Amino acid sequence: MNFSSKLLENAVNEVSQLPGIGKRTALRLVLHLLKQPASQSHHLANALTNLVDEIKLCKQCHNISDVDTCEICASHSRNTEVVCVVEDVRDVMAIENTAQFKGLYHVLGGKISPIEGIGPHNLTIDSLVEKVKKGLVKEVIFALSSTIEGDTTNFYIFKQLEEFNIKTSTIARGIAVGDELEYADEVTLGRSILNRIPFENSL
Amino acid sequence: MNFSSKLLENAVNEVSQLPGIGKRTALRLVLHLLKQPASQSHHLANALTNLVDEIKLCKQCHNISDVDTCEICASHSRNTEVVCVVEDVRDVMAIENTAQFKGLYHVLGGKISPIEGIGPHNLTIDSLVEKVKKGLVKEVIFALSSTIEGDTTNFYIFKQLEEFNIKTSTIARGIAVGDELEYADEVTLGRSILNRIPFENSL
Ligand SMILES: [Zn+2]
Ligand SMILES: [Zn+2]
Repeated sequence: MNFSSKLLENAVNEVSQLPGIGKRTALRLVLHLLKQPASQSHHLANALTNLVDEIKLCKQCHNISDVDTCEICASHSRNTEVVCVVEDVRDVMAIENTAQFKGLYHVLGGKISPIEGIGPHNLTIDSLVEKVKKGLVKEVIFALSSTIEGDTTNFYIFKQLEEFNIKTSTIARGIAVGDELEYADEVTLGRSILNRIPFENSL
Repeated sequence: MNFSSKLLENAVNEVSQLPGIGKRTALRLVLHLLKQPASQSHHLANALTNLVDEIKLCKQCHNISDVDTCEICASHSRNTEVVCVVEDVRDVMAIENTAQFKGLYHVLGGKISPIEGIGPHNLTIDSLVEKVKKGLVKEVIFALSSTIEGDTTNFYIFKQLEEFNIKTSTIARGIAVGDELEYADEVTLGRSILNRIPFENSL
């Protein structure tokens, strides 16, 4: 691309670093900003800067949060003895949306994936084991995506928790194997939490 | 969507204001930024802010530019008597890419479109007529998209310029009627400039 402006070129280059956004799409988005009042672009830029500068991870569940202890962990109306293990914040949002789950979450920050170089110690598994070791948890629900990486991660954590003799379950698979959790509809996802089965039975 | 963080929610809302970006895509893009070093998001935010704060329109051709007179208008190797009329900067970029055109451009900033409320006076048509009136232009080439709005705009400008007895031409239509100019391949677009025909012949 032959740009008539360095400012335009820089903006297009930065936007096209985003996943799934090519140069042509980036140019379209940037030219859209130029047609809007500058204040709109300032709001966008500030929202992104504030996010990356000020965002925290909840010290208890590791979910994305504005404060040290997230709303869910801080709530008095949740059952703190049931912990649902998920990959990331999108899964928390999806499950909260079903209004079917009243326990707490534990956000792993990913799945074990040798191909992507993600091992157990890149995730928050140790912190989960620690909670269980302290006797704070009676049941762990695995709610990872139904993929090879998800199953591997489930199994690894299951093995880590085995000695503590707590209840472990996985959400019922109403969704096709290979589907990402976050794309499941609310009803299916809500039902699959209610119908969870002991993890051993899912092997 | 139930957000666990106001910072996250704000960022997703701002990103999803962009055309063609839904909430889910916005969330994916924003979570991607959170996985990158914060400096990368700062670069993105700064590039957008600098762009909207510092961008200029060339005083002569109205193209997007970092300076008052763009590189093309300031160049001594261009034929200043031939002016190619285009809709926006993407069309300038596309034609420059063909390396077939050595005249100057005149960027309209859009097409006449009653549906979108864009009339002749929302475009830079007066400034083009002024240039022609001053006797600075011997030929005007219309290079607008081959759509109803493009044809309407061509015809409106043609009528405005008729009294000055200059040469007017339109780029040859190697591309299907209804196609946007910016998606044409370089060869087709380059050839269509070389094979331009007098505007009257295109009516
Ligand atoms: Zn929390
Ligand atoms: Zn110029």
